[in-house]
Amino acid sequence: MDQRKGILIVVSGFSGSGKGTIMKELLEKHPDNYALSISATTRSPRPGEADGREYFFVSKEKFETMIQEDALLEYAQYVDHYYGTPKDYVFRQLEAGKDVILEIEIQGALKIREKYPDTLLLFVTPPSGEELKKRLTGRGTEDESTIASRLSRAWQEAQGVESYDYLVINDKLEECVQQVHSIIQNQHACVVKNHRLIETIRTELKVFAEGE
Amino acid sequence: MDQRKGILIVVSGFSGSGKGTIMKELLEKHPDNYALSISATTRSPRPGEADGREYFFVSKEKFETMIQEDALLEYAQYVDHYYGTPKDYVFRQLEAGKDVILEIEIQGALKIREKYPDTLLLFVTPPSGEELKKRLTGRGTEDESTIASRLSRAWQEAQGVESYDYLVINDKLEECVQQVHSIIQNQHACVVKNHRLIETIRTELKVFAEGE
Repeated sequence: MDQRKGILIVVSGFSGSGKGTIMKELLEKHPDNYALSISATTRSPRPGEADGREYFFVSKEKFETMIQEDALLEYAQYVDHYYGTPKDYVFRQLEAGKDVILEIEIQGALKIREKYPDTLLLFVTPPSGEELKKRLTGRGTEDESTIASRLSRAWQEAQGVESYDYLVINDKLEECVQQVHSIIQNQHACVVKNHRLIETIRTELKVFAEGE
Repeated sequence: MDQRKGILIVVSGFSGSGKGTIMKELLEKHPDNYALSISATTRSPRPGEADGREYFFVSKEKFETMIQEDALLEYAQYVDHYYGTPKDYVFRQLEAGKDVILEIEIQGALKIREKYPDTLLLFVTPPSGEELKKRLTGRGTEDESTIASRLSRAWQEAQGVESYDYLVINDKLEECVQQVHSIIQNQHACVVKNHRLIETIRTELKVFAEGE
Protein backbone atom coordinates (compact mmCIF):
# COMPACT_ATOMS: atom_id res chain seq x y z
CA MET A 1 0.00 0.00 0.00
CA ASP A 2 3.00 2.30 0.40
CA GLN A 3 3.33 3.34 -3.17
CA ARG A 4 -0.35 3.82 -3.87
CA LYS A 5 -1.16 6.75 -6.08
CA GLY A 6 -3.27 9.61 -4.86
CA ILE A 7 -6.89 10.23 -5.74
CA LEU A 8 -8.11 13.33 -7.53
CA ILE A 9 -11.08 14.88 -5.75
CA VAL A 10 -13.28 17.74 -6.84
CA VAL A 11 -15.21 19.50 -4.10
CA SER A 12 -18.02 21.82 -5.05
CA GLY A 13 -20.93 23.14 -3.08
CA PHE A 14 -23.27 25.99 -2.45
CA SER A 15 -21.78 29.30 -1.43
CA GLY A 16 -22.50 29.21 2.28
CA SER A 17 -22.15 25.44 2.48
CA GLY A 18 -18.93 25.80 4.44
CA LYS A 19 -16.84 23.80 1.99
CA GLY A 20 -13.84 26.08 2.45
CA THR A 21 -13.84 25.50 6.21
CA ILE A 22 -14.21 21.75 5.72
CA MET A 23 -11.20 21.64 3.40
CA LYS A 24 -9.13 23.75 5.79
CA GLU A 25 -9.91 21.41 8.70
CA LEU A 26 -9.28 18.34 6.59
CA LEU A 27 -5.82 19.54 5.57
CA GLU A 28 -4.94 20.61 9.08
CA LYS A 29 -5.96 17.24 10.51
CA HIS A 30 -4.36 15.11 7.81
CA PRO A 31 -1.49 17.09 6.30
CA ASP A 32 0.24 13.91 5.09
CA ASN A 33 -2.81 12.66 3.19
CA TYR A 34 -3.90 15.69 1.26
CA ALA A 35 -2.76 18.46 -1.02
CA LEU A 36 -4.96 21.35 -2.08
CA SER A 37 -4.64 22.38 -5.67
CA ILE A 38 -4.02 26.07 -6.22
CA SER A 39 -5.66 27.68 -9.23
CA ALA A 40 -4.02 30.09 -11.61
CA THR A 41 -5.83 33.30 -12.48
CA THR A 42 -5.29 36.43 -14.52
CA ARG A 43 -7.19 38.65 -12.11
CA SER A 44 -5.27 40.91 -9.73
CA PRO A 45 -4.63 39.88 -6.14
CA ARG A 46 -7.05 41.34 -3.62
CA PRO A 47 -5.79 42.76 -0.32
CA GLY A 48 -4.49 39.91 1.81
CA GLU A 49 -4.06 37.44 -1.05
CA ALA A 50 -0.60 36.07 -1.74
CA ASP A 51 0.76 34.56 -4.93
CA GLY A 52 0.97 30.78 -4.58
CA ARG A 53 -1.36 30.71 -1.59
CA GLU A 54 -4.85 31.79 -2.72
CA TYR A 55 -3.93 31.71 -6.41
CA PHE A 56 -1.04 31.76 -8.77
CA PHE A 57 -1.41 35.23 -10.23
CA VAL A 58 -0.28 35.19 -13.85
CA SER A 59 -0.50 37.47 -16.86
CA LYS A 60 -2.98 36.89 -19.64
CA GLU A 61 -0.11 35.99 -22.00
CA LYS A 62 1.27 33.44 -19.55
CA PHE A 63 -2.19 31.91 -19.07
CA GLU A 64 -2.79 31.61 -22.80
CA THR A 65 0.58 29.94 -23.19
CA MET A 66 -0.49 27.42 -20.52
CA ILE A 67 -3.67 26.75 -22.50
CA GLN A 68 -1.68 26.20 -25.69
CA GLU A 69 0.78 23.90 -23.97
CA ASP A 70 -2.05 21.81 -22.47
CA ALA A 71 -0.71 22.65 -19.02
CA LEU A 72 -4.14 23.01 -17.41
CA LEU A 73 -6.50 20.31 -16.14
CA GLU A 74 -9.40 22.65 -16.84
CA TYR A 75 -9.92 26.36 -17.23
CA ALA A 76 -12.73 28.83 -17.68
CA GLN A 77 -13.21 32.49 -18.38
CA TYR A 78 -15.37 34.59 -16.06
CA VAL A 79 -16.01 38.15 -17.18
CA ASP A 80 -12.56 39.30 -18.27
CA HIS A 81 -10.43 36.83 -16.37
CA TYR A 82 -9.16 33.31 -16.76
CA TYR A 83 -9.19 30.77 -13.96
CA GLY A 84 -7.64 27.33 -14.29
CA THR A 85 -5.98 24.35 -12.60
CA PRO A 86 -2.28 23.83 -13.43
CA LYS A 87 -1.60 20.16 -14.20
CA ASP A 88 1.96 20.03 -13.02
CA TYR A 89 1.38 20.48 -9.29
CA VAL A 90 -1.62 18.12 -9.26
CA PHE A 91 0.19 15.30 -11.04
CA ARG A 92 3.31 15.59 -8.91
CA GLN A 93 1.23 15.34 -5.74
CA LEU A 94 -0.79 12.38 -7.05
CA GLU A 95 2.42 10.54 -7.97
CA ALA A 96 3.74 11.22 -4.46
CA GLY A 97 0.66 9.46 -3.11
CA LYS A 98 -1.23 12.54 -1.93
CA ASP A 99 -4.96 12.82 -2.49
CA VAL A 100 -5.38 16.12 -4.30
CA ILE A 101 -8.41 18.31 -3.69
CA LEU A 102 -9.71 20.81 -6.22
CA GLU A 103 -12.28 23.34 -5.10
CA ILE A 104 -13.98 24.21 -8.36
CA GLU A 105 -17.43 24.63 -9.81
CA ILE A 106 -19.50 22.17 -11.76
CA GLN A 107 -18.36 23.08 -15.28
CA GLY A 108 -14.73 22.45 -14.31
CA ALA A 109 -15.70 19.34 -12.36
CA LEU A 110 -17.38 17.81 -15.40
CA LYS A 111 -14.46 18.65 -17.70
CA ILE A 112 -12.04 16.94 -15.31
CA ARG A 113 -14.25 13.90 -14.88
CA GLU A 114 -14.45 13.53 -18.65
CA LYS A 115 -10.66 13.41 -18.97
CA TYR A 116 -10.05 11.51 -15.71
CA PRO A 117 -13.02 9.23 -15.03
CA ASP A 118 -11.61 8.10 -11.67
CA THR A 119 -12.02 11.58 -10.23
CA LEU A 120 -14.17 11.62 -7.11
CA LEU A 121 -16.82 14.36 -7.09
CA LEU A 122 -18.19 15.65 -3.79
CA PHE A 123 -20.93 18.22 -3.39
CA VAL A 124 -21.28 19.98 -0.04
CA THR A 125 -24.65 21.20 1.14
CA PRO A 126 -26.19 22.48 4.36
CA PRO A 127 -28.89 20.12 5.69
CA SER A 128 -31.72 22.08 4.01
CA GLY A 129 -32.53 25.04 1.80
CA GLU A 130 -33.85 26.78 4.91
CA GLU A 131 -30.49 26.32 6.63
CA LEU A 132 -28.67 27.48 3.50
CA LYS A 133 -30.74 30.64 3.48
CA LYS A 134 -29.96 31.18 7.17
CA ARG A 135 -26.26 30.85 6.50
CA LEU A 136 -26.38 33.23 3.55
CA THR A 137 -28.48 35.84 5.33
CA GLY A 138 -27.04 35.23 8.80
CA ARG A 139 -23.82 37.04 8.04
CA GLY A 140 -25.82 40.25 8.26
CA THR A 141 -23.46 42.14 6.01
CA GLU A 142 -25.37 41.98 2.73
CA ASP A 143 -28.48 43.73 1.49
CA GLU A 144 -31.55 41.89 0.27
CA SER A 145 -30.78 42.01 -3.41
CA THR A 146 -27.30 40.51 -2.83
CA ILE A 147 -28.87 37.73 -0.81
CA ALA A 148 -31.55 37.17 -3.43
CA SER A 149 -28.95 36.87 -6.17
CA ARG A 150 -26.92 34.44 -4.03
CA LEU A 151 -29.99 32.29 -3.48
CA SER A 152 -30.76 32.36 -7.14
CA ARG A 153 -27.18 31.33 -7.89
CA ALA A 154 -27.46 28.53 -5.33
CA TRP A 155 -30.56 27.33 -7.12
CA GLN A 156 -28.61 27.18 -10.36
CA GLU A 157 -25.74 25.34 -8.64
CA ALA A 158 -28.23 22.78 -7.38
CA GLN A 159 -29.05 21.77 -10.96
CA GLY A 160 -25.77 19.90 -11.36
CA VAL A 161 -25.78 17.85 -8.17
CA GLU A 162 -26.73 14.61 -9.96
CA SER A 163 -23.35 14.58 -11.68
CA TYR A 164 -21.54 14.23 -8.37
CA ASP A 165 -20.74 10.99 -6.54
CA TYR A 166 -21.48 12.02 -2.98
CA LEU A 167 -23.68 14.57 -1.29
CA VAL A 168 -21.93 15.72 1.88
CA ILE A 169 -24.28 17.29 4.38
CA ASN A 170 -22.50 19.89 6.46
CA ASP A 171 -24.52 19.89 9.64
CA LYS A 172 -21.85 19.47 12.32
CA LEU A 173 -18.42 20.51 11.08
CA GLU A 174 -16.36 17.85 12.87
CA GLU A 175 -18.58 15.00 11.72
CA CYS A 176 -18.59 16.38 8.23
CA VAL A 177 -14.78 16.59 8.06
CA GLN A 178 -14.60 13.01 9.34
CA GLN A 179 -17.06 11.87 6.70
CA VAL A 180 -15.21 13.57 3.86
CA HIS A 181 -11.97 11.97 5.07
CA SER A 182 -13.55 8.54 5.21
CA ILE A 183 -15.23 8.85 1.79
CA ILE A 184 -11.90 9.76 0.22
CA GLN A 185 -9.91 7.10 2.06
CA ASN A 186 -12.44 4.40 1.17
CA GLN A 187 -12.00 5.36 -2.45
CA HIS A 188 -8.57 3.72 -2.25
CA ALA A 189 -10.39 0.43 -1.62
CA CYS A 190 -12.37 0.62 -4.86
CA VAL A 191 -11.79 -2.36 -7.09
CA VAL A 192 -10.76 -0.07 -9.97
CA LYS A 193 -7.95 1.28 -7.77
CA ASN A 194 -6.65 -2.19 -6.95
CA HIS A 195 -6.09 -3.94 -10.25
CA ARG A 196 -2.44 -4.57 -9.50
CA LEU A 197 -3.10 -6.22 -6.15
CA ILE A 198 -5.83 -8.34 -7.69
CA GLU A 199 -3.52 -9.45 -10.48
CA THR A 200 -0.76 -10.26 -7.98
CA ILE A 201 -3.08 -12.40 -5.86
CA ARG A 202 -4.32 -14.19 -8.97
CA THR A 203 -0.81 -14.96 -10.13
CA GLU A 204 0.26 -16.22 -6.70
CA LEU A 205 -2.84 -18.40 -6.42
CA LYS A 206 -2.25 -19.88 -9.83
CA VAL A 207 1.34 -20.77 -9.01
CA PHE A 208 0.30 -22.34 -5.70
CA ALA A 209 -2.61 -24.25 -7.22
CA GLU A 210 -0.40 -25.66 -9.93
CA GLY A 211 2.48 -26.36 -7.57
CA GLU A 212 0.59 -28.37 -4.97
CA MET B 1 -32.25 11.10 7.83
CA ASP B 2 -34.49 9.15 10.21
CA GLN B 3 -36.54 7.38 7.63
CA ARG B 4 -33.74 6.56 5.24
CA LYS B 5 -34.01 3.18 3.59
CA GLY B 6 -31.41 0.53 4.13
CA ILE B 7 -28.74 -0.50 1.64
CA LEU B 8 -28.43 -3.96 0.19
CA ILE B 9 -24.89 -5.28 0.46
CA VAL B 10 -23.40 -8.44 -0.98
CA VAL B 11 -20.24 -9.68 0.68
CA SER B 12 -18.18 -12.31 -1.08
CA GLY B 13 -14.60 -13.36 -0.66
CA PHE B 14 -12.10 -16.16 -0.74
CA SER B 15 -12.65 -19.07 1.57
CA GLY B 16 -10.13 -18.25 4.27
CA SER B 17 -10.54 -14.50 3.84
CA GLY B 18 -12.26 -14.26 7.20
CA LYS B 19 -15.43 -12.71 5.80
CA GLY B 20 -17.63 -14.65 8.21
CA THR B 21 -15.73 -13.30 11.20
CA ILE B 22 -15.89 -9.75 9.82
CA MET B 23 -19.67 -9.95 9.42
CA LYS B 24 -20.08 -11.41 12.91
CA GLU B 25 -18.04 -8.57 14.45
CA LEU B 26 -19.85 -5.97 12.36
CA LEU B 27 -23.26 -7.15 13.54
CA GLU B 28 -22.14 -7.41 17.15
CA LYS B 29 -20.74 -3.87 17.11
CA HIS B 30 -23.62 -2.25 15.25
CA PRO B 31 -26.74 -4.34 15.89
CA ASP B 32 -29.02 -1.39 15.10
CA ASN B 33 -27.47 -0.76 11.69
CA TYR B 34 -27.36 -4.18 10.14
CA ALA B 35 -29.35 -7.29 9.43
CA LEU B 36 -27.85 -10.45 8.02
CA SER B 37 -29.93 -12.19 5.41
CA ILE B 38 -30.56 -15.86 6.06
CA SER B 39 -30.64 -18.18 3.06
CA ALA B 40 -33.15 -20.89 2.43
CA THR B 41 -31.88 -24.35 1.44
CA THR B 42 -33.24 -27.78 0.68
CA ARG B 43 -30.27 -29.58 2.18
CA SER B 44 -30.59 -31.17 5.61
CA PRO B 45 -29.33 -29.38 8.73
CA ARG B 46 -25.88 -30.43 9.89
CA PRO B 47 -25.20 -31.07 13.57
CA GLY B 48 -25.35 -27.75 15.44
CA GLU B 49 -27.31 -25.91 12.76
CA ALA B 50 -30.68 -24.46 13.67
CA ASP B 51 -33.57 -23.57 11.38
CA GLY B 52 -33.77 -19.79 10.98
CA ARG B 53 -30.21 -19.26 12.27
CA GLU B 54 -27.76 -20.78 9.77
CA TYR B 55 -30.47 -21.42 7.15
CA PHE B 56 -34.16 -21.75 6.68
CA PHE B 57 -34.41 -25.47 5.99
CA VAL B 58 -37.25 -26.10 3.57
CA SER B 59 -38.51 -28.95 1.41
CA LYS B 60 -37.83 -29.14 -2.29
CA GLU B 61 -41.54 -28.54 -2.96
CA LYS B 62 -41.61 -25.46 -0.76
CA PHE B 63 -38.47 -24.11 -2.46
CA GLU B 64 -39.91 -24.63 -5.93
CA THR B 65 -43.07 -22.83 -4.86
CA MET B 66 -40.91 -19.91 -3.73
CA ILE B 67 -39.23 -19.88 -7.16
CA GLN B 68 -42.62 -19.87 -8.90
CA GLU B 69 -43.95 -17.10 -6.68
CA ASP B 70 -40.86 -14.96 -7.33
CA ALA B 71 -40.20 -14.97 -3.60
CA LEU B 72 -36.40 -15.21 -3.94
CA LEU B 73 -33.87 -12.46 -4.66
CA GLU B 74 -31.62 -15.06 -6.25
CA TYR B 75 -31.19 -18.81 -6.07
CA ALA B 76 -28.88 -21.49 -7.36
CA GLN B 77 -28.65 -25.24 -7.43
CA TYR B 78 -25.49 -26.97 -6.14
CA VAL B 79 -25.34 -30.70 -6.65
CA ASP B 80 -28.80 -31.83 -5.54
CA HIS B 81 -29.79 -28.90 -3.41
CA TYR B 82 -31.24 -25.45 -3.83
CA TYR B 83 -29.88 -22.38 -2.04
CA GLY B 84 -31.56 -18.99 -2.24
CA THR B 85 -32.27 -15.63 -0.60
CA PRO B 86 -35.88 -15.06 0.49
CA LYS B 87 -37.06 -11.60 -0.56
CA ASP B 88 -39.52 -11.02 2.22
CA TYR B 89 -37.05 -10.71 5.11
CA VAL B 90 -34.60 -8.59 3.09
CA PHE B 91 -37.24 -6.10 1.95
CA ARG B 92 -38.79 -5.76 5.38
CA GLN B 93 -35.39 -4.98 6.91
CA LEU B 94 -34.52 -2.48 4.16
CA GLU B 95 -37.82 -0.69 4.66
CA ALA B 96 -37.09 -0.54 8.39
CA GLY B 97 -33.86 1.27 7.57
CA LYS B 98 -31.47 -1.61 8.20
CA ASP B 99 -28.56 -2.22 5.88
CA VAL B 100 -28.94 -5.85 4.86
CA ILE B 101 -25.91 -8.03 4.26
CA LEU B 102 -25.97 -11.09 2.02
CA GLU B 103 -23.03 -13.46 2.17
CA ILE B 104 -23.22 -15.10 -1.23
CA GLU B 105 -20.99 -16.03 -4.13
CA ILE B 106 -20.36 -14.17 -7.31
CA GLN B 107 -23.11 -15.72 -9.48
CA GLY B 108 -25.75 -14.70 -6.94
CA ALA B 109 -24.10 -11.30 -6.47
CA LEU B 110 -24.31 -10.55 -10.18
CA LYS B 111 -27.94 -11.67 -10.42
CA ILE B 112 -28.88 -9.36 -7.56
CA ARG B 113 -26.94 -6.43 -8.99
CA GLU B 114 -28.75 -6.88 -12.29
CA LYS B 115 -32.14 -6.59 -10.63
CA TYR B 116 -31.11 -4.02 -8.01
CA PRO B 117 -28.34 -1.84 -9.46
CA ASP B 118 -27.86 0.07 -6.18
CA THR B 119 -26.59 -3.06 -4.45
CA LEU B 120 -23.14 -2.57 -2.95
CA LEU B 121 -20.71 -5.40 -3.72
CA LEU B 122 -17.75 -6.06 -1.40
CA PHE B 123 -15.05 -8.63 -1.95
CA VAL B 124 -12.92 -9.67 1.02
CA THR B 125 -9.34 -10.82 0.53
CA PRO B 126 -6.30 -11.48 2.69
CA PRO B 127 -3.46 -9.04 1.90
CA SER B 128 -1.77 -11.47 -0.52
CA GLY B 129 -2.03 -14.87 -2.16
CA GLU B 130 0.80 -16.00 0.12
CA GLU B 131 -1.22 -14.98 3.17
CA LEU B 132 -4.32 -16.66 1.75
CA LYS B 133 -2.37 -19.88 1.35
CA LYS B 134 -1.12 -19.58 4.93
CA ARG B 135 -4.66 -19.17 6.19
CA LEU B 136 -5.92 -22.14 4.20
CA THR B 137 -3.05 -24.42 5.16
CA GLY B 138 -2.55 -22.99 8.66
CA ARG B 139 -5.60 -24.72 10.06
CA GLY B 140 -3.55 -27.91 9.91
CA THR B 141 -6.61 -30.09 9.61
CA GLU B 142 -6.66 -30.73 5.88
CA ASP B 143 -4.52 -32.89 3.63
CA GLU B 144 -2.61 -31.54 0.65
CA SER B 145 -5.17 -32.40 -1.99
CA THR B 146 -7.95 -30.62 -0.06
CA ILE B 147 -5.73 -27.57 0.25
CA ALA B 148 -4.83 -27.73 -3.42
CA SER B 149 -8.46 -27.86 -4.44
CA ARG B 150 -9.24 -24.94 -2.14
CA LEU B 151 -6.48 -22.90 -3.71
CA SER B 152 -7.71 -23.79 -7.13
CA ARG B 153 -11.22 -22.75 -6.14
CA ALA B 154 -9.84 -19.48 -4.74
CA TRP B 155 -8.18 -18.86 -8.08
CA GLN B 156 -11.53 -19.29 -9.80
CA GLU B 157 -13.21 -16.97 -7.29
CA ALA B 158 -10.56 -14.35 -8.06
CA GLN B 159 -11.79 -14.16 -11.65
CA GLY B 160 -14.91 -12.24 -10.70
CA VAL B 161 -13.38 -9.57 -8.49
CA GLU B 162 -13.69 -6.84 -11.14
CA SER B 163 -17.47 -6.98 -10.86
CA TYR B 164 -17.33 -5.83 -7.24
CA ASP B 165 -17.25 -2.24 -6.00
CA TYR B 166 -14.72 -2.53 -3.19
CA LEU B 167 -11.83 -4.79 -2.38
CA VAL B 168 -11.62 -5.13 1.38
CA ILE B 169 -8.23 -6.28 2.59
CA ASN B 170 -8.52 -8.28 5.79
CA ASP B 171 -5.14 -7.75 7.38
CA LYS B 172 -6.08 -6.62 10.89
CA LEU B 173 -9.60 -7.68 11.84
CA GLU B 174 -10.59 -4.60 13.83
CA GLU B 175 -9.46 -2.17 11.12
CA CYS B 176 -11.17 -4.26 8.51
CA VAL B 177 -14.50 -4.27 10.38
CA GLN B 178 -14.20 -0.50 10.80
CA GLN B 179 -13.53 -0.09 7.08
CA VAL B 180 -16.47 -2.23 6.03
CA HIS B 181 -18.70 -0.22 8.36
CA SER B 182 -17.49 3.06 6.95
CA ILE B 183 -17.79 1.94 3.31
CA ILE B 184 -21.40 0.92 3.92
CA GLN B 185 -22.32 4.02 5.90
CA ASN B 186 -20.77 6.32 3.29
CA GLN B 187 -22.97 4.65 0.72
CA HIS B 188 -25.88 6.49 2.30
CA ALA B 189 -24.19 9.73 1.19
CA CYS B 190 -24.15 8.73 -2.47
CA VAL B 191 -25.98 11.20 -4.66
CA VAL B 192 -28.22 8.42 -6.03
CA LYS B 193 -29.40 7.74 -2.48
CA ASN B 194 -30.30 11.37 -1.86
CA HIS B 195 -32.58 12.40 -4.69
CA ARG B 196 -35.35 13.38 -2.33
CA LEU B 197 -33.16 15.68 -0.23
CA ILE B 198 -31.74 17.26 -3.38
CA GLU B 199 -35.24 17.90 -4.72
CA THR B 200 -36.35 19.38 -1.41
CA ILE B 201 -33.40 21.78 -1.29
CA ARG B 202 -34.05 22.80 -4.88
CA THR B 203 -37.69 23.50 -4.22
CA GLU B 204 -36.93 25.51 -1.09
CA LEU B 205 -34.27 27.53 -2.91
CA LYS B 206 -36.59 28.29 -5.76
CA VAL B 207 -39.30 29.53 -3.42
CA PHE B 208 -36.79 31.71 -1.53
CA ALA B 209 -35.21 33.09 -4.68
CA GLU B 210 -38.58 34.02 -6.13
CA GLY B 211 -39.88 35.36 -2.85
CA GLU B 212 -37.06 37.78 -2.08
